[in-house]
Amino acid sequence: MIYDLSILGGGPAGYRAAELAGGEGLKTLLFEERNLGGVCLNEGCIPSKALLYSAKIYDYMNGGGVKYGVTCGNPVLDYAAAVKRKDAVVKKLVAGVEAGLKKAGVEIVREHAVITGRAANGFAVEAAGNVYEARNILICTGSEPVMPPIKGIETCMTNREILALTEIPKTLAIIGGGVIGLEMASLFNSAGSKVVVYEMADKVAGPFDREVSDELQKIYEKKGVEFKLGAAVKDVAELGAEKTLASVGRKPSTKGMGIESLGIPAERGAIITDELMKTGVPGVYAAGDVNGRHMLAHTAYREAEVAVNNILGRRDIMEYNAIPSVIYTNPEAAGIGETLESARQKAISASETKLPMQYSGRFLAENEGGSGFIKLVWSGAKLIGAHMLGNPASEIVSTLSAIMYREMSLNQIKKIIFPHPTVAEIIKEAVFHA
Amino acid sequence: MIYDLSILGGGPAGYRAAELAGGEGLKTLLFEERNLGGVCLNEGCIPSKALLYSAKIYDYMNGGGVKYGVTCGNPVLDYAAAVKRKDAVVKKLVAGVEAGLKKAGVEIVREHAVITGRAANGFAVEAAGNVYEARNILICTGSEPVMPPIKGIETCMTNREILALTEIPKTLAIIGGGVIGLEMASLFNSAGSKVVVYEMADKVAGPFDREVSDELQKIYEKKGVEFKLGAAVKDVAELGAEKTLASVGRKPSTKGMGIESLGIPAERGAIITDELMKTGVPGVYAAGDVNGRHMLAHTAYREAEVAVNNILGRRDIMEYNAIPSVIYTNPEAAGIGETLESARQKAISASETKLPMQYSGRFLAENEGGSGFIKLVWSGAKLIGAHMLGNPASEIVSTLSAIMYREMSLNQIKKIIFPHPTVAEIIKEAVFHA
Repeated sequence: MIYDLSILGGGPAGYRAAELAGGEGLKTLLFEERNLGGVCLNEGCIPSKALLYSAKIYDYMNGGGVKYGVTCGNPVLDYAAAVKRKDAVVKKLVAGVEAGLKKAGVEIVREHAVITGRAANGFAVEAAGNVYEARNILICTGSEPVMPPIKGIETCMTNREILALTEIPKTLAIIGGGVIGLEMASLFNSAGSKVVVYEMADKVAGPFDREVSDELQKIYEKKGVEFKLGAAVKDVAELGAEKTLASVGRKPSTKGMGIESLGIPAERGAIITDELMKTGVPGVYAAGDVNGRHMLAHTAYREAEVAVNNILGRRDIMEYNAIPSVIYTNPEAAGIGETLESARQKAISASETKLPMQYSGRFLAENEGGSGFIKLVWSGAKLIGAHMLGNPASEIVSTLSAIMYREMSLNQIKKIIFPHPTVAEIIKEAVFHA
Repeated sequence: MIYDLSILGGGPAGYRAAELAGGEGLKTLLFEERNLGGVCLNEGCIPSKALLYSAKIYDYMNGGGVKYGVTCGNPVLDYAAAVKRKDAVVKKLVAGVEAGLKKAGVEIVREHAVITGRAANGFAVEAAGNVYEARNILICTGSEPVMPPIKGIETCMTNREILALTEIPKTLAIIGGGVIGLEMASLFNSAGSKVVVYEMADKVAGPFDREVSDELQKIYEKKGVEFKLGAAVKDVAELGAEKTLASVGRKPSTKGMGIESLGIPAERGAIITDELMKTGVPGVYAAGDVNGRHMLAHTAYREAEVAVNNILGRRDIMEYNAIPSVIYTNPEAAGIGETLESARQKAISASETKLPMQYSGRFLAENEGGSGFIKLVWSGAKLIGAHMLGNPASEIVSTLSAIMYREMSLNQIKKIIFPHPTVAEIIKEAVFHA
């Protein structure tokens, strides 16, 4: 049996590619030694959102409802119950991924897979002593947490362990104030932990717009989270917290899977890919975190689609200029494209429109006393970026994805009809203020 | 003083037009005898959303949090406090509208205005004994509730009175199961009223997709609302409710403002407009509910923009094919463009893709046990409609507005990158299932 495509890794890139390729009639093989769905579904995006939603409801009970005329006595967050529900949500989605793959005729091998070299008709992959031959290979082995050289780092939790906790620590130290760090700070602060975030940079939220980052930090300081910026942690024990999370970043997972057997070019552990998701070896593709390009699940999905389309002979190009990012704090933050700062660093002449979220009637109706704003970044009449702080930024930003993907002009954007009253209307308001 | 533009009515169409016209340098006069912001801001969209949000929080406390591991004792909805907050939100937004108009240099006359005929340089409008002359007129006098010929109808509340209640009626009868009726059923059902909805048609939610309507009805039946379909109410007293809301529809407000003085053509009370928002009298435009076209605030905004652009000599055309509608129940429903049913009535060959909302990981994470679905209506590879049931449909549907406005092809839609995990991703999922 010669397969058309061997896919290493069943996370967002891998399962998306497999479902698509199988559905298009390619004989597709997917190797995954852990759970289908990868880090995102099992230990990242989805479980964190399920728990954050429990925390959001608890916030309302824990005094958050008062300004809306709603109160109650004795609010209780049964964290173990919330975790149990989270596990059930994950299980259901993993089952859904498996069902989708089966429907698409994908063969799944639940073993660690290693590329062993070229074969008569393509490439050989070995798993549990069996050798599988395929015409194309797609590497989707994802990423793993960076563990910085700090004393006691081995005692820290990563995203995996923190999402498996069933009890709330009294004190929680978080090393790294990026997206994961902030979301976990939000969750455990709501749940009752005393949280301190240690961030080496001079702002939280990594490459997010600086004003978004600073305002989000202020909001969480008011909620009781402590932030130490410019903080180089030397020793975990010194932080003195009951539990410590290490969330300083992630790195591509490329070890132990035989990429050297084919001489696949990599740089600092990341497999190098072009805009067709091809690696330096014809017939071998890589998608998702493993190429170190963007490290987001939705980027992985699209890269997977591009890879499969090109394998099918349908030219498709990966574009990275209209990819949204979200922080699922409360309020949420979302961004897409350039910030004014990143545009200037690239010598792009850019200007900015900033509007408070309070220009949206619905935002006022549902966010009593809430701050937040939208910023649109323009290069002439072309929208090259947008940044938002305020709920539900995550669900609104896809309208900006559509606008930026189609490179709509200012006058075209003005003609999109946003339903009233919505928070999404803030986009239209900001465009009219540009 | 000869004005460039006299606008009758300061609701969404009127204030939007005035702000735009004033900002473009037109000498603009706005007549409004009641509060700025019109029915939408003062007695409709905004106050209902403020109150519905209080109800949503109360729902969580009132047992809704249990499945998320969150409980409390003794939940209380202090309805008078919720109403007070609602009033403060409205007041803030009305002040915002006024500030925007002043900034744009618009002159506001807070009197009832009547068109009295032609003048040397255009048209004459009389208000409180003064006559104002303007080169152009824009009629934005909105709409009012239809009061059907039912015995005792004069005892019923309309949207105005029900949103001003400060106490929860024990029993509430609602005549008319359209958008307003359903939203008020949702609000008062959550707040503790026993609600019965009487609807003359064989489905609720007016022209919304039939499956969306039916599923929404089922959800509210489970929550305790009673529905009587095909119900022709003859006598309000027979309903036996403490309070009764009449919400059978709205009709254009064209009486007592002198449209006959210019012979402006109207049909069943609605001023007839073309795609430039011109009436049958050159120089006279109409926008918003008064033309009876679409009767939604966001349609009014866009019509106002079209009218002003054409007054400014910038040709702009009103299109009605990509206008979203929303029902702010819990869950929300949203629709845009054709349903399969409406397409067939127009002899458009159409097909449908339907996908449960549960295909979205975030929907699962935040809507435990929730039903809901998305339907995409296609004419070949062209998206001509979309219909959704599930939170936050209202905030997601603007992505579909952008897609449909730009008439993006199936292959283009596939390339839009939706952030993961969001409910908005369901659009992408559904597109890949098409």
